[in-house]
This record gives sequence, C-alpha cells and structure tokens, in this order.
Amino acid sequence: MTKKLYELAIDETFEMFLLIKNADVRTAKNGKPFIAFTFQDKSGQMDGKYWSATPEEIERYQSGRIVFLAGKREIYNGNAQVKISGMRLARDGEPNEPGLFMEQAPLTKEEMVDEINQTLFEITSAPMNRVVRFILNKFSQEVFEYPAAKRHHHAFTGGLGFHTVSMLRIAKSLANQYEVLNKPLLYSGVILHDLGKTMELTGAVGTEYTLKGNLLGHIVMMEEEISKACIELQIDEDCEEIIALKHVVLAHHGKLEYGSPVRPHLLEAEILHQIDLMDASINMITQALQKTTPGEFSERIFGMDNRSFYKPTFTE
Amino acid sequence: MTKKLYELAIDETFEMFLLIKNADVRTAKNGKPFIAFTFQDKSGQMDGKYWSATPEEIERYQSGRIVFLAGKREIYNGNAQVKISGMRLARDGEPNEPGLFMEQAPLTKEEMVDEINQTLFEITSAPMNRVVRFILNKFSQEVFEYPAAKRHHHAFTGGLGFHTVSMLRIAKSLANQYEVLNKPLLYSGVILHDLGKTMELTGAVGTEYTLKGNLLGHIVMMEEEISKACIELQIDEDCEEIIALKHVVLAHHGKLEYGSPVRPHLLEAEILHQIDLMDASINMITQALQKTTPGEFSERIFGMDNRSFYKPTFTE
Amino acid sequence: MTKKLYELAIDETFEMFLLIKNADVRTAKNGKPFIAFTFQDKSGQMDGKYWSATPEEIERYQSGRIVFLAGKREIYNGNAQVKISGMRLARDGEPNEPGLFMEQAPLTKEEMVDEINQTLFEITSAPMNRVVRFILNKFSQEVFEYPAAKRHHHAFTGGLGFHTVSMLRIAKSLANQYEVLNKPLLYSGVILHDLGKTMELTGAVGTEYTLKGNLLGHIVMMEEEISKACIELQIDEDCEEIIALKHVVLAHHGKLEYGSPVRPHLLEAEILHQIDLMDASINMITQALQKTTPGEFSERIFGMDNRSFYKPTFTE
Amino acid sequence: MTKKLYELAIDETFEMFLLIKNADVRTAKNGKPFIAFTFQDKSGQMDGKYWSATPEEIERYQSGRIVFLAGKREIYNGNAQVKISGMRLARDGEPNEPGLFMEQAPLTKEEMVDEINQTLFEITSAPMNRVVRFILNKFSQEVFEYPAAKRHHHAFTGGLGFHTVSMLRIAKSLANQYEVLNKPLLYSGVILHDLGKTMELTGAVGTEYTLKGNLLGHIVMMEEEISKACIELQIDEDCEEIIALKHVVLAHHGKLEYGSPVRPHLLEAEILHQIDLMDASINMITQALQKTTPGEFSERIFGMDNRSFYKPTFTE
Amino acid sequence: MTKKLYELAIDETFEMFLLIKNADVRTAKNGKPFIAFTFQDKSGQMDGKYWSATPEEIERYQSGRIVFLAGKREIYNGNAQVKISGMRLARDGEPNEPGLFMEQAPLTKEEMVDEINQTLFEITSAPMNRVVRFILNKFSQEVFEYPAAKRHHHAFTGGLGFHTVSMLRIAKSLANQYEVLNKPLLYSGVILHDLGKTMELTGAVGTEYTLKGNLLGHIVMMEEEISKACIELQIDEDCEEIIALKHVVLAHHGKLEYGSPVRPHLLEAEILHQIDLMDASINMITQALQKTTPGEFSERIFGMDNRSFYKPTFTE
Amino acid sequence: MTKKLYELAIDETFEMFLLIKNADVRTAKNGKPFIAFTFQDKSGQMDGKYWSATPEEIERYQSGRIVFLAGKREIYNGNAQVKISGMRLARDGEPNEPGLFMEQAPLTKEEMVDEINQTLFEITSAPMNRVVRFILNKFSQEVFEYPAAKRHHHAFTGGLGFHTVSMLRIAKSLANQYEVLNKPLLYSGVILHDLGKTMELTGAVGTEYTLKGNLLGHIVMMEEEISKACIELQIDEDCEEIIALKHVVLAHHGKLEYGSPVRPHLLEAEILHQIDLMDASINMITQALQKTTPGEFSERIFGMDNRSFYKPTFTE
Repeated sequence: MTKKLYELAIDETFEMFLLIKNADVRTAKNGKPFIAFTFQDKSGQMDGKYWSATPEEIERYQSGRIVFLAGKREIYNGNAQVKISGMRLARDGEPNEPGLFMEQAPLTKEEMVDEINQTLFEITSAPMNRVVRFILNKFSQEVFEYPAAKRHHHAFTGGLGFHTVSMLRIAKSLANQYEVLNKPLLYSGVILHDLGKTMELTGAVGTEYTLKGNLLGHIVMMEEEISKACIELQIDEDCEEIIALKHVVLAHHGKLEYGSPVRPHLLEAEILHQIDLMDASINMITQALQKTTPGEFSERIFGMDNRSFYKPTFTE
Repeated sequence: MTKKLYELAIDETFEMFLLIKNADVRTAKNGKPFIAFTFQDKSGQMDGKYWSATPEEIERYQSGRIVFLAGKREIYNGNAQVKISGMRLARDGEPNEPGLFMEQAPLTKEEMVDEINQTLFEITSAPMNRVVRFILNKFSQEVFEYPAAKRHHHAFTGGLGFHTVSMLRIAKSLANQYEVLNKPLLYSGVILHDLGKTMELTGAVGTEYTLKGNLLGHIVMMEEEISKACIELQIDEDCEEIIALKHVVLAHHGKLEYGSPVRPHLLEAEILHQIDLMDASINMITQALQKTTPGEFSERIFGMDNRSFYKPTFTE
Repeated sequence: MTKKLYELAIDETFEMFLLIKNADVRTAKNGKPFIAFTFQDKSGQMDGKYWSATPEEIERYQSGRIVFLAGKREIYNGNAQVKISGMRLARDGEPNEPGLFMEQAPLTKEEMVDEINQTLFEITSAPMNRVVRFILNKFSQEVFEYPAAKRHHHAFTGGLGFHTVSMLRIAKSLANQYEVLNKPLLYSGVILHDLGKTMELTGAVGTEYTLKGNLLGHIVMMEEEISKACIELQIDEDCEEIIALKHVVLAHHGKLEYGSPVRPHLLEAEILHQIDLMDASINMITQALQKTTPGEFSERIFGMDNRSFYKPTFTE
Repeated sequence: MTKKLYELAIDETFEMFLLIKNADVRTAKNGKPFIAFTFQDKSGQMDGKYWSATPEEIERYQSGRIVFLAGKREIYNGNAQVKISGMRLARDGEPNEPGLFMEQAPLTKEEMVDEINQTLFEITSAPMNRVVRFILNKFSQEVFEYPAAKRHHHAFTGGLGFHTVSMLRIAKSLANQYEVLNKPLLYSGVILHDLGKTMELTGAVGTEYTLKGNLLGHIVMMEEEISKACIELQIDEDCEEIIALKHVVLAHHGKLEYGSPVRPHLLEAEILHQIDLMDASINMITQALQKTTPGEFSERIFGMDNRSFYKPTFTE
Repeated sequence: MTKKLYELAIDETFEMFLLIKNADVRTAKNGKPFIAFTFQDKSGQMDGKYWSATPEEIERYQSGRIVFLAGKREIYNGNAQVKISGMRLARDGEPNEPGLFMEQAPLTKEEMVDEINQTLFEITSAPMNRVVRFILNKFSQEVFEYPAAKRHHHAFTGGLGFHTVSMLRIAKSLANQYEVLNKPLLYSGVILHDLGKTMELTGAVGTEYTLKGNLLGHIVMMEEEISKACIELQIDEDCEEIIALKHVVLAHHGKLEYGSPVRPHLLEAEILHQIDLMDASINMITQALQKTTPGEFSERIFGMDNRSFYKPTFTE
Repeated sequence: MTKKLYELAIDETFEMFLLIKNADVRTAKNGKPFIAFTFQDKSGQMDGKYWSATPEEIERYQSGRIVFLAGKREIYNGNAQVKISGMRLARDGEPNEPGLFMEQAPLTKEEMVDEINQTLFEITSAPMNRVVRFILNKFSQEVFEYPAAKRHHHAFTGGLGFHTVSMLRIAKSLANQYEVLNKPLLYSGVILHDLGKTMELTGAVGTEYTLKGNLLGHIVMMEEEISKACIELQIDEDCEEIIALKHVVLAHHGKLEYGSPVRPHLLEAEILHQIDLMDASINMITQALQKTTPGEFSERIFGMDNRSFYKPTFTE
C-alpha cells in the first residue's frame, strides 16, 4: 500500500507506517488514560485518539517512534482525523527512520546553499558581506535543518532555510523593480533575520523553546551575533553599515508589540518586515487550504488574526 | 535659468517660473493677511509665505496660476522652503501651462496602457476578463490622469495608473514564484482595486474629496461598478468568480478599521492588500527621503505610523 | 400535556413534542458517538445530550424533524437543559409541522406590513420613497420570514420584520421629539438597513451564512440594491438624496471596526445606528433575563461585551 | 439694530451689545499683547481678536462684562469670527445684564419643573421616590441653572434641566414600547444621573471644574448623595431598590474607560446610558450643523469621535 | 502521618485529613455525575476528581466539610492534582475545624493590629486621623479575617490585613526616602484603600461577591464610608484633606479601565496605586512559583497579563 | 544679586548670569527672525523669546554660552517665562563656566560611587558580580555625568547615576521585606538597566540621540555589553545567571509596546520594572509640582499619560 495520509479518501480504511509526532497522555472523563496522538508522514500531520491505554502502551508509543497503524480517515469538526483500529511498533526490516516521514523543504539543502551563495556576490558592502559569511558559516548546519517556527509557518525540517530562500526571491524581484532599495542591506537582512531561531528553538524534531529563546528571543540573539562577528573580524561596530544591519534585524517584526525593540526606521527594514510577512502569510494560508475541501472555509489560522480562508471551486 | 526647485542649493537665490499648487490666505498675528503658498515644478513641491498681502495680490495669486518668482531656497525645521523676494504672473509667451509644472508618472500613458493590456491576456477567467475590460473602458480617461491619493502616496498626475502598473509588476513576480496564487483573480483585483478613486476624488489638479467620496468611499463605489458591469454584460453576479472579485476589491484595505467592510478571506485578497501596502510604503518613504540630507532623518510620514526614516550616508 | 419547555419547573419530568433545531454528532471521551441536540418549541430553545447513539439513531434524529421526547428539565451551570430518557419520531396524525414549534415575532405579518406601509406615507422624498418601495417589493417575502441575525438578537422567524417595526417606533418617537431629524431619510434608513440579511443568511430554519454573506456582507449588498433600484427606476444615483440614503445604510454599524466602510457623517446615520443598537440591546438582554431566576445574574451575553445582567427581585 | 450675531450675513458690518464670555491675554509673535475674545449673545458664541491691547484695555475688557462692539462678521477656516473695528463698555441705561446675552434652555424653568414633577408620580417604588424627591429638593436651585457640561453638550444656562427633561421624554416613550423596562428605576436614574454636575462645575457663568469635580467626579458625588439621603430618610441602603438606583447612576457612562466605576449590569442601567448618549449626540450635532452652510461639512465635533457632519441641501 | 499536601513527593500515596474548599458536581461525557473537588490544607490547595458519584456522596461531600482522604499526589498538565482512592467524612474526635486547614497570613492578628496602630501616630492630619480610626473601628473584625481578593492575590484568611501591613511597610520606606511624599495622606490611603472588600466579598470561607459588591464595587463603597464618617464625626467633607483622602481611595486602581472612576491626580494617589500593584505582584508571582519546580515555568498568572514566570535553578 | 531663576517672584525684574541651554532661530509671522531661548541655572530652566534678532545676535547667542540678562519673570499659560529687556555675553572675569549653571544630582559623584560600591558586596553571584564590575568600570566616567533621559525624568547632569542610586535604595528595602527576591539579580539589574543610555545619548550638555541610540536603543546595547563582558572575562554566556541578567535588562520596560523585546518572565525582572517606574514617576511629578502654585494643577506630564497633578494647600 503506497498511499499517503492526505491521499486517503474520507472514510477510507488503511494500514500504513506513520511517525508519532506527538503522544500526549490525558485522562478521559471516565477516569481512564488515553493517548492523543499526532501522526505524520510526508503528506502532512493528522490527529487520532487511542482510548483506554494501558501503562505498557503509554510506555511503548512515544513521540519519535514509527508505528504500523490500521485505521480509518475521518472528518471531525471540519478537521481530518484518524480513527485507530489497531497499531504496533515497526519491526526490524520495516521502515524505521523518522526522516522518512517528516515534511521537508521543497528544495534540497544543496539548492538552497547555492541560491544563498549566489546572493552573497550581490552583497557588495565589505563589512556586511564579511559578517553575513561569518554567521552563515557558524550556523551552516542548523540553517538548513531547523524549522522557521515552532508552529505557524514553515514548521518543517529545513523550513528556516526555505523561508530564507523564498524571501530572497521576493527581495531580488523588488530590488530590481525599485532601484532605491539598497541591495546589500536588504539581502543581508533577509539572510540573517531569522537565524537566531537556531538558538531560540531546540531543533527540527520535537521543537520546543530553549531557555534563552524564552528569556532573550531570536531577534536580540542574532543582533548579538553580529556584534560578536565584528569583534572576531575586527570590523568597527559603530560604522553605519553595521548599525544599519543590526537595525534591520532588530526591527524585522515591524512593531514593538510584535517583539521588535525598535520600529523600522530604514526603508530596507520596513520592506524586510513586509517581505517576511508576505512569505509567512502565503505559507500559512496555503497549508490551511491544503486541508480544506473546495467550496469550504479552512480552519481558523492563528497567525492570520484567527481568520479562516475560503477555498474557491474555480481554479482559473 | 534651467535649474528646478529641488536642484537648487540651500541658500541659493533664484528666479524661475512655478505653478501655484495651493494659496491659503491666513491672518498673521499682527492682524494682517498673508498667503501661504505651495509652489510646484516637476522636481517637487515647496512652501513659501507671502507677508502683508494686499487684496489685489490675494485676488491675483490663486491656485493654478503660473508665476515668475524671485527668491531664495532655505531650510526651516528640516523642511525645504522658499523665501519670496518678488513675484509676478507669467505673461503671454512665457511658460503658462500648468501641465508643464506638475509631477508625472515615470511612465507615459501609452506605456501604462500597454502593460495593463498585456496583463489582460493572463486574466483567463471569462467573467473576470469581461468585467475588467468593461470597467477599464468606462474609466479609460481618468485612470491615467488621476492621482492615487489626495496626499500620502502617488499624489501626482497619472499616479493612479502608475500605482496600478507597479503593483501588477509585484503581483506577476509573486504569482510566478507561488503557483498557488490565482492569477486572473489577483491581476483583476490589482487593476480594479483603486479605480473607485476616480469617483472619490475630483481630479488631478486641486484634488479634493467628492461628496460621494466622503459618504460612500472608493471601495464600495468600485464594488458597485462590478455589479453594474455584470448587469450590462449579462453575467450572473452570483457566480463564484464575481463574488470573489468583489471580495478582493472590498477587502483590499486589509482591516475593518482601515475601511474595508470585510477582512480578507481569500488568499488573493490578503496578498492584494499586502502588495498595495508595499508599493505605497516604498513610494511614501522614497518621497520623504528625497527631501532629506544623507545622515539625517526625514520628516515624519503620516501614512507610515508617523515614523521618520533615516537616510544613510553609505550607498552600497 | 400542554406545558411548554420554559413552563416546566426545574427537575420536572415531561413528555412532549419538540422540534430538533440542531443535531450535532460528536465523539464522547469514551470513543462512542453522541448527539448534542438543541430542542425548540415556541417558548424557546433548550439543549440536551443523547449518549451512545447508534448509526440508525444518528440517521433518524436530524435537524428539522419533530420528536416525541420523554425527559426531565434540569439546570446545568446555570443553563436550562433537557435530560433525555427516551425519544421517538412524531407519527402521522401527531403534530408534525416545524412551524408549530418555532418562535415567532409577537406581531403577525399583516400587522407588520401595515405598520411599514403607514410609514411610507411619511417618506415624502420622491427618490427615497420610490427606492424603498421597489426594494420592499423585491424582498417582500423574505422580510417577514427571515430572522434579524443568525444568533444574538431577533433570531427567530419574522425577527427581521419585527426588528424593523420596533426600530420604526423608536424612530418616530424621536423624530417627533427632535424636529431637526429628517423623517424621510431616517425612516428609509430604518426600513432598508438590515434587508441585506435576506441575502446574507440562508433563511429562517437552520440559519447559516451564504458565501456572499461571508465575502461581501449584508451592508454592502443592500447598498448595491439601492444602486440597482435607481437604474431600474431611472433615478439619478448621484442626487444627494440617494447618496444620503446609501450612506445611512453603509454607516449603520457605527464604527469601522464593526464592519461599516464609513463612519456616520449625517445626523440621521448616527441616530439610525443608535436606534439599531438600542432595539438589539433590549432584545438580547430581555432574552437572557427570561432564562434567569430573580435575584441571579444571567449568562454572559456575547453581543453586550460579554456582560451578565442582574434580574432584580423587586418589580416596581 | 436688532440683529443677533448669527443672524448677520458674512462680511456684514455691525454695531451691537455683546457679552464677553472669555478674554484671554496672549503675546503676539511681534511681542505685543493681544486679547483673544469670545463674544456671546443668545444666538451663540463667536471669537474675535483684539490686537496691540494696552494694559488699560486688558484691565477693562474682562470676562463677564458687556461691550458695545463695532465690527464685521467674517469666516476664517470655516469658522465664523468677528473682526473688531472698535469697542467700549456698555454704559448706565444700556443693556448691562449678562443674563440678557446667555443662551438658554428652550423650556422655562416652570415647564421643566412641571414635567419632572409629573414623572415623580410614575416612580411608584417608595424608597426611590423618596430619595429622588429629597435630592431634587436639595439641588432645586442648581438643576435649572447649571449647564449639563462645561463644553460639549447642553453647555448653556438651564442645560442640565433641559437635558434631563429631554431624556425623560425618550425614556417614557421607550418604557411604553418595551414593557420589560422598570419605569421607577429608569426614570429615577434619568433624573439623578447628572445632578452631580452641580457639584462638579462652578455654575452657569464662566463654568470651570471645582476641586472635588476634578478629584472625585460627578458620578461618585451623586452616588454619595443617594447614600446621604438614605441616612437622612432612614431608608435601608442595602435594600435592592437603593443598590439598583446607585448602580444606574454609577454605570451611566457605559464603559469603565469613560469613567464609570462599574459597567451596566441592569437592563435599565444600559438603557439609561444609551438614552444619555442619544440626547447628547443630537444636541452636539445639531449645534455644529447650526453653524454650517448647507452642502458643507461642519467643524469636527470632539464628543463625536472628532467626526464632522454633512449638512444636506435637501430638507425633506 | 503529618505531611501536608505540598510536602508530598510526586506519585507519593497518602492518607490525611483535608478541608473540601469546593465541590462542583458535573456530568461526565458518559452521562454520569462526578465531583470536581478542591481540597485544602495549610500548605495550599489541590484539585481532584471523584468519578461516578452517587446522590448520597454528592449530598455528603460538600464544601466546608473535613474528609479523611486516601490518594496519590500526581502531576497533570504541569499542575499538582490528587488521585482519589477513597474518602470518608471526619468523625468525632478527629480534626474537624475548617480553620485548621485554611491558609493564613504569616502575621498574627495582634501583630497586624499593632503595626497599623503604630502607623496611626504618623497620620498627623486631624481629619484624616479621625476618619481612619473611625473606619478601622467600624470594620475592626473583618479587616483581619477577610481575604484581599476572591482569587488572584492574598486570597486567604487575614489576607486583607496582611496586604495592608505589607503595603504600609513599602510606603514607610518610600516616604522616608522621598521627603516630598505626604505621609498622613499616603498612610491613610494604604489603610483604607481596600477596606471596601469587606463589603464587596462575603467573607473568608467560600468567598463570593455580594450584590452590592457586583453592582457598586469596593472602591465606591469605601469612598462612601469616608463620607459617612465625616457626617458622624462632624468633619467638613469639603475640606481639602478629605477630598484628597477620597481621591486616593477612588484612584487607587490607577486607570479608568481598571475600575477607578478617576485617574490619580495627586502624587500620593499615583504612588499608592504603584505600591498596591507591587505588593500584589510579588504575592501572585511568589504563589505561582511555590508550585513550580526549579528550571520550569510556572502556570500562567491571570493577574499578571497571563504571563508565566521562570523559576531559576540558581539561588544566589 | 544672588537670587536664582526660580527664586524670583512673579513679575519681579532681575539682572543675572544665565546659561543658554537652547537657542532656536525661528521666523516670526511678520517675517523677521527671532530666537527662542531656554535659559538655565541651578534652580531650573525657563523659556524666553528674543524678537527681531539681527544676524550678529543670532551668531553671538548660541547654545552653551553664558549671558548677562536683564528681564522680568512672568507667567504665560501657567508656565514660567522670562521677558527679555536686554542681554550681553559674559565677559572675562565674570562667571563663565557652563557647569556653574547646570542642575545636578543631589548627591556628589563620590557619594554615588560609594553607595554603588557598597552594593557590589551583596552581589554574591560570581558571574553577575564580575560582569557588573567590568561594565561599571568601562562606563565609570559617563555613569555619573549623563542624564537618565533626554527629557522626562532625571534629565540633569549626573541624573543617570542618581536614578540608579535611588532605585538601589528602593530595591534594598524591598529585598529585605520580601525574602523571595534574589538580591544579586535584582541589584545587578538596577545597576545595569539604564547604562546603555551612555551610548544612546550624546551627553549631559545639549543632549541628543545618537544614531545607534535611534536605530538600536539603550536596552539592546546594554544587553550586548553583557555579552562582550562575558567574552572578555571568559564567562559562559549560556549559564543561567547570565541569561537571567540579560533578561532583566531586556525586559525592564515591562511591556513590548514600551520597547522591551521580551516581557518580564522572572520575578526580579517584573520588580525591576516597577522600581524603575516608581522612581521615574516620583521624579517627574515632583519636578512638575515644583513649578506649580499650591492650590493649582501642574502642567500636563507627558511621561505620566499626559495627566496634570494637583498641588494641595495642606502640607501635613
């Protein structure tokens, strides 16, 4: 059987291997424990409940394990869900590698590296170019593995790198249309703006916030990295290029109430913020619409002011 | 003498022909009337005060007239201003046509028409295509003459058409990057979204709000035009394509508090709103920075939450 | 047995015919399906849960059916509810017409028609009078059948018409007290302001939002109808009376954030908004207090900023 | 000459007696003092500036004095103003009583007393009736002299009484339409709600806030008066009628941010608030429109969210 | 066995006497009633559910009773909870007095009385001193029994008195550091500001809001008490000291939207508000951290903008 | 003559030496330039206008110069101002040192150094102690010279140091009252929280924002300094003590909308914020009341939500 989760018809029964993304043990109203699973394969994630779980089952079916699941795909309150009829752990010789089931960026790491490297040639400001290369090098591993967020948008392996590349594409198109935009500053800002996520989050699997992620935040941590890069590279931190670069990173959330300690006061800071919003919005809405039947409204999207979006029946 | 207003050095004296854009008569604290002028040539607008004006002078120097002005360019509170040493009306044989002094879109009307017409081929939805053509035809004159706003952004002759074309360029680049975007709907929305300005405002010279502009607003008036086009063209208003097209027009201000009666509930409505914001922001910030010396902050920009923007001294 | 739902004492058992207003199938924590019913008779609506429902029962007890129910009236968290001990469908010869169980306006359709028709004589402005008559005629059926809202206020058959008549009574009393109010404009506004609900909602039974209700909203749709009436009746849309009439409809939610695309800029627009608020408030609070014991606070009312209201023990 | 200020045509010259409502001494930009006058007669108030005032003139022309003024009525920025050509104090034998020039309620004190007294018969709750009579008696003088506010609405002699009577008329009409409203509570609330203004403000002439007006506010001071009346009349303050009466007074501003220490939690408290808003709105808009030419927008009204209102050219 | 609730290790089983603080009867999803208990001893409160309760058990285990409970301490969603394995009512001869199980202020009533009495000597303003003594006397019983709030902060027996004493300590330290602070006014304000809670709430056990608590609020009721004290003591209510004292009580919530009818307009009113906030914040955060393991975040605290607080692993 | 500016009676004439704090050249409505001066001596600052200034005078009377001024102290709109009758520059041998005229902290630098040094002994956490000493050392000069803000509070020479010492006093008193507070963290936070002002502002005379002050802000810059100190001192930046220290600095504005990139999530971060607010409030209100006559309201204070404060006539 080769169908994936989101290729199943509604009410279709199935048997397939799936990754346990989350396994929360809760107590049912009848006093017995049950497991609230989120299963995952490359087509997406789907929830399912396992009632009256024994202590052994709770022990056995933990987050990160692969299971062979028999069940039925259903709809509950407009959301897809799995009705579980039976499950067991995957055995030796069966698919057993979490990576086989996780969503991934639509570009390979090499393609992303390449596209970012091409961009470096257009960062013609020496201090910006050196700082960006230094930091990219320092986090070269994490950039293409981390998600761009715990939830919300680009929450998949490599999501951070893919979000960066998508934003670079918008940035380049804008910079070519509007000559007034300073390319080195805008491109450097795009590349660095979310790299602090690699310190804010714990990684691609079972993503949580780190202590410094909670208490300092990715914005300030990346600004600090620019400072450290300057010390290491003996670049004057007080030169206008570096102050501007720090500013576009600090201001990229656009408003104080969204966690930027300063509002954008450079054209490129404002536009970086808008590009970020645009790519994240398209990603969030697209994800929600993928789960929606044409002619219906999607579930509410937290990151889009809790709005739901309509999926039209016409396609052109 | 061929220099333009914004080509003058600070404290440089000059004699030149200028258009009177505004001429407000006010009473000075010493009880005498003075005229608060805004002069204009193709390089931009600059204010200047004319003290102790006689009734004849007030009669003579009205908005829309061309004058020959002797004066000095000065800086007052960081804003450029004209110190008037003498002025007279332009005579026969001298430059006397307001159009010669007004800012204009950087594209000719023909170029804009062409670019929009090219886009029509990509609006492959029959009802949308027919409605867009019908309305473009109805307002063919005004689109390329009206400004896009009374103040704020693209407030110049042809500004409405140029704003539309700039947005189409962003829209096309996005639609090619993100396949999920419905091109016919997004492009139709871009073309129609601000056409109601031609009924909201009085025109390119001495731009004011009309009564129905004040009481109904351009958003609702354009939605009505789609309705009328459907009646005329015998298109079913209740088909999903037309409802969607009306929606992207109604929702393009993005939030209820900005005057949209509905929030965006289609992907293309959200993105149309963001493209509109992006082009308007770049236009407003660029205009403000043009009047700013490198190393200084611009005046505050009302349409950008009253922020001022820094003009860096580095250029790459 | 002739008692109605809200005439039952608390903990009183009963057998009676009831309309199923809603029947949502949900899964209990023990994994079995149950039906969350809302039952209804002319005294009001009450919820009740049906545990461990079989597929046949889920099929049988759907929204719109009449059932003969044995149960007990209880209080749960301050809300009245039905404890179901048994139920079956109504049979031939038993009460079987949904209309027998639905709440209705306290006036007959004829009384409402009459009261509105009387008002038309006071709309002495020719263009307003003709437009109002045209639109009333077009929606003559729906006005006296539709509710005024999906939930919140006047959510019963004929609620829209009754809300209109109640507002007219306030409007007339005010117009007689304050001579400055323009009667034709105020009365026309009252009659038309919510008529768009007939296109926004699906009807009196199982009321939902239509697609155009969600994407365009009743405010804009009614404004469009004025436009279409003018075309049909060959009235100049740009005459001040029609612009004013459109404005009072568009502005009747009072604030942009409540979905009006313009704020009230005519005295009559402001007062129409306040009359609407007043009649809706009295209706919502009265409904909530009807379910409340004297000396207690009502449930929280969403449409009144989520406040609860106290029901005093004194009555005069 | 018998014309009043607002009966003058624009640019009409005049000689007439006027009351000096305000006389602020300011320094002109040329360093010399001038007096910014507000003149008043029964038709309304109008500003005018007196340039290069001598110390004797500043001493002579103070607030509260009557002057014989020669001048011209002008328009400045859409507001009516007086251009002063000469002025002197009124002499013995000339009109010299401020009361002759002050705006007044359109009802006489006797008419207002009568209308309120009639209402007392409908306050059939004994504790409410006694408290209302006691307080009315205590402030019998001030009620019909004080304005209802320093600025904003009903800011004229007797304005407080007239505002009360107008609200009573609305309240009665509503109470007859909606039986659920408790008449004694609603009418008592209307009569008492703003009586604290007599302690908050200094009086009808040169109205200012008192210290306790600033530090305690009229809402709390009136609530205290109910408490004192109960002590005096030996009524149990903790009976539900008195708690309810105190509540409607405390809650009549409708929202915490408008200065009510509690939000309305009784139907009558909510409706009292809405009636107050309605009468005040009509009064403020009507006042602004009186100064506006048909076909123009009024000045912005602070108490109406700073909106301006359009004065239509049609009248029916 | 002498361990208290919060001295138990996680998963430790126990048998102990506990007070039932709350006992809500709810219906489980399987249709059967269960009791949602909150148990309490001097170490704190903990929730526990009792499934499939019989009518007799519901009757027996009510709020205020003492039970002998066998169970296990568990963690559920980061909150401590009790798993009940058996329970019976306490018998004669066993601990049976609710007071033995309730949290209490860390000072005895005598210590608190003493500390407040010492402060009275520093209230050197005669009218303030007399009013404060009069009111303290009137509520002498309740001050040291009532909690300072129903939930949120100092929600324990004697909490009101302890909150007052804690604030007095901060106030004294500040008044000694900043000479500009008026000690009599600040100390009087601290002592009186929350005394209205004794009328707003029903008492220390099963704390609920009274009707006048809901409809008038503690702020206004205490202000009234000052008024009554003045009448009783024949002090002129209009003297500046009394107006100021009333003001600091009325303004102590700091903002209109927090329920103060006036904002602070005296230095001491502002500082009283800040001291109140400071003591309440420390109390709320400390309480939440007591239940939190080092290295974890606490539960969200409603009174602190719903923030959670981190409990560090370092202690110095 | 030895009186200082604020020791002069109203309308008292004087001759004295004063520092020019600001000298803005503006154009009067009559077209002539004038100078808007702010004069200063140790008693405070006062404005005064110099009309019809010649180019030589504009050149001569610049910010930072000392003048001998003849004038009169007046009141204008409730604010003290100087009426200038004559002025000349101070000559050799006359008081000529700006420092002689500038407001200063009420403690000497030595007293402040001493008090801070005493506190260091209570910072018993080794990493915090070392970081705090390192940074104090780095900015040892500026701390006791800079103001704590450009305007608002402690805007005088040494204001930053004095604000720090005042806050330390509050912090110590609180830490002794509430044992739960972590002294090392709280005291370290107090000392460091505003030190970034030394990079945000240009200095004590003619205080302006630096470019990095505008684009990065003092909060982030100080957090960076902690990072740099750790690198220099080879302290692990990821140890919990350092993360906590960075957090209290970042969070000290208390809310995102006040410019903190994270809200307080440590007890000490919340209390540091409240102490900062408290000392700043007392300073701002005290300054405003110093210029206010007893029995009057002060001018509005921007930093206190634009409230004005009443200065009572009683003093005890």
